[in-house]
Amino acid sequence: MADKYVYLFKEGNAGMKNLLGGKGANLAEMTGLGLPVPQGFTITTEACIRYYKDGQTIAPDILDQVYAALSETEKTAGKTFGSLDNPFLVSVRSGARVSMPGMMDTILNLGLNDVAVQGLANLTRNERFALDSYRRFIQMFSDVVMEIDKSKFEAVLDAVKHQKGVKYDKDLDASDLKDVIKRYKDLYTREKGEEFPQDPKTQLLEAIKAVFRSWDNPRAIYYRRMNDIPGDWGTAVNVQSMVFGNMGDDSGTGVAFTRNPSTGENKLYGEYLLNAQGEDVVSGVRTPQPIATLADAMPEVYNQFTDVASKLEKHFHDMQDMEYTIERGKLYLLQTRNGKRTAAAALKIAVDLVDEGMLTETEAIMKVEPKQLDSLLHPAFDPKAIKAAKPIATGLPASPGAASGQAYFTAKEAVEAAQSGKKVLLVRKETTPEDIEGMDLSQGILTVFGGMTSHAAVVARGMGRCAVVGCGALSIGKDEKSVTVAGVTYKEGDILSIDGSTGNVYAGAIPTVEAQVAGDFARLMGWADKARRLKVRTNADTPRDAEQAVKFGAEGIGLCRTEHMFFEADRISAVREMILSNTETQRRAALNKLLPMQRGDFEGIYKAMGERPVTIRFLDPPLHEFLPQKYMTDEIASIAKELNTTSEAIVAKIEQLHEFNPMMGHRGCRLSITFPEIAQTQTQAVIEAALNARKATGLNIKPEIMIPLVGDVKELAFVKRIILETIEKVFAERGETIEYMIGTMIEIPRAAVTADEIATEAEFFSFGTNDLTQMTFGFSRDDAGKFLEAYYDKKIFEQDPFARLDQDGVGKLVKMACKLGREVNPKLKLGICGEHGGDPSSVVFCHKAGLDYVSCSPFRVPIARLAAAQAAIQDK
Amino acid sequence: MADKYVYLFKEGNAGMKNLLGGKGANLAEMTGLGLPVPQGFTITTEACIRYYKDGQTIAPDILDQVYAALSETEKTAGKTFGSLDNPFLVSVRSGARVSMPGMMDTILNLGLNDVAVQGLANLTRNERFALDSYRRFIQMFSDVVMEIDKSKFEAVLDAVKHQKGVKYDKDLDASDLKDVIKRYKDLYTREKGEEFPQDPKTQLLEAIKAVFRSWDNPRAIYYRRMNDIPGDWGTAVNVQSMVFGNMGDDSGTGVAFTRNPSTGENKLYGEYLLNAQGEDVVSGVRTPQPIATLADAMPEVYNQFTDVASKLEKHFHDMQDMEYTIERGKLYLLQTRNGKRTAAAALKIAVDLVDEGMLTETEAIMKVEPKQLDSLLHPAFDPKAIKAAKPIATGLPASPGAASGQAYFTAKEAVEAAQSGKKVLLVRKETTPEDIEGMDLSQGILTVFGGMTSHAAVVARGMGRCAVVGCGALSIGKDEKSVTVAGVTYKEGDILSIDGSTGNVYAGAIPTVEAQVAGDFARLMGWADKARRLKVRTNADTPRDAEQAVKFGAEGIGLCRTEHMFFEADRISAVREMILSNTETQRRAALNKLLPMQRGDFEGIYKAMGERPVTIRFLDPPLHEFLPQKYMTDEIASIAKELNTTSEAIVAKIEQLHEFNPMMGHRGCRLSITFPEIAQTQTQAVIEAALNARKATGLNIKPEIMIPLVGDVKELAFVKRIILETIEKVFAERGETIEYMIGTMIEIPRAAVTADEIATEAEFFSFGTNDLTQMTFGFSRDDAGKFLEAYYDKKIFEQDPFARLDQDGVGKLVKMACKLGREVNPKLKLGICGEHGGDPSSVVFCHKAGLDYVSCSPFRVPIARLAAAQAAIQDK
Repeated sequence: MADKYVYLFKEGNAGMKNLLGGKGANLAEMTGLGLPVPQGFTITTEACIRYYKDGQTIAPDILDQVYAALSETEKTAGKTFGSLDNPFLVSVRSGARVSMPGMMDTILNLGLNDVAVQGLANLTRNERFALDSYRRFIQMFSDVVMEIDKSKFEAVLDAVKHQKGVKYDKDLDASDLKDVIKRYKDLYTREKGEEFPQDPKTQLLEAIKAVFRSWDNPRAIYYRRMNDIPGDWGTAVNVQSMVFGNMGDDSGTGVAFTRNPSTGENKLYGEYLLNAQGEDVVSGVRTPQPIATLADAMPEVYNQFTDVASKLEKHFHDMQDMEYTIERGKLYLLQTRNGKRTAAAALKIAVDLVDEGMLTETEAIMKVEPKQLDSLLHPAFDPKAIKAAKPIATGLPASPGAASGQAYFTAKEAVEAAQSGKKVLLVRKETTPEDIEGMDLSQGILTVFGGMTSHAAVVARGMGRCAVVGCGALSIGKDEKSVTVAGVTYKEGDILSIDGSTGNVYAGAIPTVEAQVAGDFARLMGWADKARRLKVRTNADTPRDAEQAVKFGAEGIGLCRTEHMFFEADRISAVREMILSNTETQRRAALNKLLPMQRGDFEGIYKAMGERPVTIRFLDPPLHEFLPQKYMTDEIASIAKELNTTSEAIVAKIEQLHEFNPMMGHRGCRLSITFPEIAQTQTQAVIEAALNARKATGLNIKPEIMIPLVGDVKELAFVKRIILETIEKVFAERGETIEYMIGTMIEIPRAAVTADEIATEAEFFSFGTNDLTQMTFGFSRDDAGKFLEAYYDKKIFEQDPFARLDQDGVGKLVKMACKLGREVNPKLKLGICGEHGGDPSSVVFCHKAGLDYVSCSPFRVPIARLAAAQAAIQDK
Repeated sequence: MADKYVYLFKEGNAGMKNLLGGKGANLAEMTGLGLPVPQGFTITTEACIRYYKDGQTIAPDILDQVYAALSETEKTAGKTFGSLDNPFLVSVRSGARVSMPGMMDTILNLGLNDVAVQGLANLTRNERFALDSYRRFIQMFSDVVMEIDKSKFEAVLDAVKHQKGVKYDKDLDASDLKDVIKRYKDLYTREKGEEFPQDPKTQLLEAIKAVFRSWDNPRAIYYRRMNDIPGDWGTAVNVQSMVFGNMGDDSGTGVAFTRNPSTGENKLYGEYLLNAQGEDVVSGVRTPQPIATLADAMPEVYNQFTDVASKLEKHFHDMQDMEYTIERGKLYLLQTRNGKRTAAAALKIAVDLVDEGMLTETEAIMKVEPKQLDSLLHPAFDPKAIKAAKPIATGLPASPGAASGQAYFTAKEAVEAAQSGKKVLLVRKETTPEDIEGMDLSQGILTVFGGMTSHAAVVARGMGRCAVVGCGALSIGKDEKSVTVAGVTYKEGDILSIDGSTGNVYAGAIPTVEAQVAGDFARLMGWADKARRLKVRTNADTPRDAEQAVKFGAEGIGLCRTEHMFFEADRISAVREMILSNTETQRRAALNKLLPMQRGDFEGIYKAMGERPVTIRFLDPPLHEFLPQKYMTDEIASIAKELNTTSEAIVAKIEQLHEFNPMMGHRGCRLSITFPEIAQTQTQAVIEAALNARKATGLNIKPEIMIPLVGDVKELAFVKRIILETIEKVFAERGETIEYMIGTMIEIPRAAVTADEIATEAEFFSFGTNDLTQMTFGFSRDDAGKFLEAYYDKKIFEQDPFARLDQDGVGKLVKMACKLGREVNPKLKLGICGEHGGDPSSVVFCHKAGLDYVSCSPFRVPIARLAAAQAAIQDK
């Protein structure tokens, strides 16, 4: 038997979403439930896939099935395509597995031609309506299906109106519309070199092809990339008998939700228009009525509708979003689907449905999209206040949240202002690693340059600090004391506000509301915590971040980057002294200055984390990152003065440290191999701080030392030996011991490939998937931006591999390393600390790969908790 | 039973090299053959390994075995350690599996103490000799074993000579020597805080430990790295009864080879000294006699020796290097081993031994070290002429061969001079990619800066052009018209000569002799070609290199880098025009200028290669490599003028193309994905040239198109589609077709991991192990130099992974890719084109991994052929 590519609505059901698309599956399900659905059929997603395989043509066997279903539907409707008496008209709509903006949406009234338009006029007893429908159909078909520029049709319409001396479409009468139709058809012939298709079957074929084509238009591709939707799913096409909501005052059309999609309130929510088609609701020419008023206008229909709504919600165990039409007093359901909702509504609905007995806790967990939580986790502007505010500029929404603060234009001044108790907004052309402290102490960060992966964006997201970047409308004064936007200048200390979720920038202060992690949120997360197997840790470098993460449910620190502490004003000088040292003795002297500061940092972090494990990564970046650039002569001079050396000496060191490919240079454990005293000092700080914190708190502190950038077990063994010797020395000096672990990051392909060797020296692996992705693909994150856009356009990549773990390549290495490592060392603890640790689809991968934990930035901890729960539930 | 760590000579044999070391195994073998060998015992390499495992101590069970063997040997010799009557003295020598300079060599006369020295005096009836031996032993033991600075003993000796008013050691009499001995012992006590050990067993224990320690001294580690010797082999220690060649005129000592080690001539070769110890031969105070004269001096001994020599050569099937001593008319063999020999001698001996029936062809192949061939493949200075020449400076021997030529100081002038028919030597501070043409047209390259992996070194080796780099004694004039060395200035056009095998630089011309690939060389290579399975191709970018490689036996081109052609003077301008284009139209116009030139290049290469396959890699480097640096304002201005644009426009493009990590940037197939017209033009050139060359020669030309830097099968599929479309177009235009292949480099870890996917689109894989090594280890070749030295020092790396393929990591990826690829596509052709393709141990790996071919620079082709044969033979 030939493959089945076309299903009548009565042949399908809701379980067939992959084949019929969401829309088609639900139309079938409603048909099965005996609800009033205008009948029709669905051309499957597999037909779409074959369309592409067959070089963008529809194979004859599929076409045969389409025509068979068409004739069956005509019979059911008792109408005939192109008939004068009782013309059969259909809508054609796309419908992928998940709702997907960017594709072709709807073609209405397909089947109209010179004959059928008469039939429609007779049927509706309204010639003008029939002609206007025909005119609109020609225009829509020409534009959407045949890709003739819409403006050409609008020009024709304008010309006719001008000729008649009227302003609005509605002022054209039937004879005018006949003129328009004639001119439209002429235009079509000129553009396409053939007449407008009078055969409804030809119209249908072209419309189906247009839906298939639209699956791969750039907007659809972009949307898929943003939403992790595979390009090989394809879309289905739904062909459905037309019903008319514009056949008089006993007709109408509308949309409704079973619950409020903004708040989640359990109350039917929606609107309708009498004597109208869907287009009229969307166009906004007439104002729709709240659905409650339908109870007065058409009480029977209203009662029927509320019954249907309740039935659908109970049937699908979820809030429904429905389209309906009333044709001469008869209700038709055109579509139902699980309704889109705000994060707050999603939580409330999920929890309410459990309380109402409609969902189990496990089912409720599956109802909330983890990524959506993000919007709840950051402070936001007060909804009332923001309505009144007008942005002065808009940049890229680089890191979510909202903040108001006094503008400062250098990190140094921002730090001073913040330390004097001010709320600060850091405004910079772009940020550099030296701005870290200023960024950390600010409420938010605003930059003129840079994209979504610029330094400011990446660091701000990591910190959970809100940020707007690449706001090119800003112009910062040369003296770094003011910023000008659209002719208005704001001076240092003036208050600005930014919304990191929209990219908007405002003048003046706007009140914010704090994130809510109690109530429905807390209940759902509690269920998620029961369901998941994966632990969730956080990436945190400061006590402040650690506290925030604990509030969000972090069960430990998976990555504490020691270098971020080194950029702070009181440390950078000692760090530079260390770098500029020419002998081990000099280096040790500089490191000894850093020791007490670092020990203090670690004590603060241990105290914030209590008995939760804390993984501390040893110094990782190349040393030149701590020095200014060669051309920054003023800064070099000031450093020279401070460190009692010459500018020449500093420039010489900068040149000596220059690297062609810093990403692949002298960094990570390579630093401790050339300068073992760095590892010694860091070990001393980690262990002494743990002993101090235990004494101060009485808690069982659990430090885990992590060695970065290992590619060969001998590197790890070398550094580990230094660490062990240092620990023994500290224990002997202090006369007490503490438990600790030593492990490594797996971020070099060779480490993954030789994980069996590395596991002999490591107590844990933490996958550094940022670097592992770079090395595995062989492109650096800083440079890939230049060609990745071309990769997306050409469908070579569908996803940003730095945002979503590449499971085929990088993921294969991760799985290989897990397997090799555990074979040698069954107790090996496995985690991930790249940014992927907070990406829901990557969390699912980590669960399947058998990792023990994921670690992500504090604001992603709840997202990871929920994603981990969903992974565990799916796994069962 | 306890493990056996000590073997008497009579317990071992030549097959036990791994356990007894080469020296020990051969002493045992000679003992077994009944040859006169002073008896003794060998402490095994496993004892050395245990020594390190046990924290650099010798375990009691091993010591027990040593003392047991000692007492057995005393019995055999009829002498006793420390005896007054008949003192037992021994030599202690290291002996690894292979001869290894850098380790401790020999301690003679161990066992001497205050008593035994009397015994020796009585025995030799020569008190002065005995005392002098004791003095020397104390000094040697203190220096070599106990690490007391030798100069302190020399100062004592000088003081005694000064006191007595004599100049030479020989002028000191017995009583003087007693004084020296007393002072030596005092010095020892002062230095070590204990008396000089009188107990011979203590002396022996310390000497054994010193041998073990010397396995890991820096010189030994360096030698192992240079010679691919694993660090975990360890060394054995040989303890052998002393015999004395200085007991009068019926005694003597010497060394001999069974054949001439320089020429391979089949004639006993060597020398001896009567009444002397080995030290005297080495020190050069007395001039040894040719061995032939021994026939007159001691005819019986001479006849006995020639018999022994002939017996040993027949027994070991190889030329032997022997040490012997004659004690009172009795011959003793102290050592025999396969003799070191020059490359020419190695070839002659191997071929002669086959002709003499002593070796099979297969065995002969195994007798020649592939790397050794290198010295035969390049022109060399005439041996007579070079003896008289005195170098004016010495740099690093970066690329072997010898050349004389007129000095030019810019690539441009070198090219002009060469094109006018001059023989040119390019002298530069350092070279850049733009100098390629000048380097190619020169006889040799001499630079002031740069190391063994500098641009000049790497490119010169690839070209087979001889080069001396990092010659810091040179100072090039500011006007680039002269060079000054040690106060002498050589002007443009003056003749200089360089030896790339020694690093020497000479003034004036020195005649050279060409490489000999005929005679013994050709016969041995013929046998190798019969034995090997791996094909050997070459990396060649020009017809000249291709011809050279064919002469050396290349069976195809495995890598033709198209970008090298782009740097030539007449092309670079069009390349830059292409890069500076802002539209596809502009880019196509520039590419069209390049098309005929590239087509011509390919025609030349096809003609040089005939019907051998030619693999052409599409453009690989990042585009900024073709532009000058930002600070080169003069050059930018001249380019702007040439291309009719502004300096600002060029600087803007340079900035736009700047990359943080160029190695991981916009290069390889990524270029053809963003600019498909590059792949189109290159395809057109490749295919049209093949059609033209076929027409011109009538030969069946076989182009293979190779797409670089693929990490995802979709990249390959995209570029391949462009190539196929272009080929079809060319075929249609020309009305003829030709066979071709399309494949990819595997040089990105992700490509290796997903090779099963990639193989669906590729007809061949060529492993680009240079980049694959960089990405797998996560360090760039340009930057790793800064920390690799520390890695060698700390024994983290034993080998340079860019010279010798890292089989555990990179090799694992190669094997994985081979397996995955062949599973999907059993016909998949597999090769390697990284520099490892010419490294013998890596060739062995490639054979085992099942590759079809290796590709290497022309001058390494014979090395690869021999290594491939050895791999195939070992495999059987």
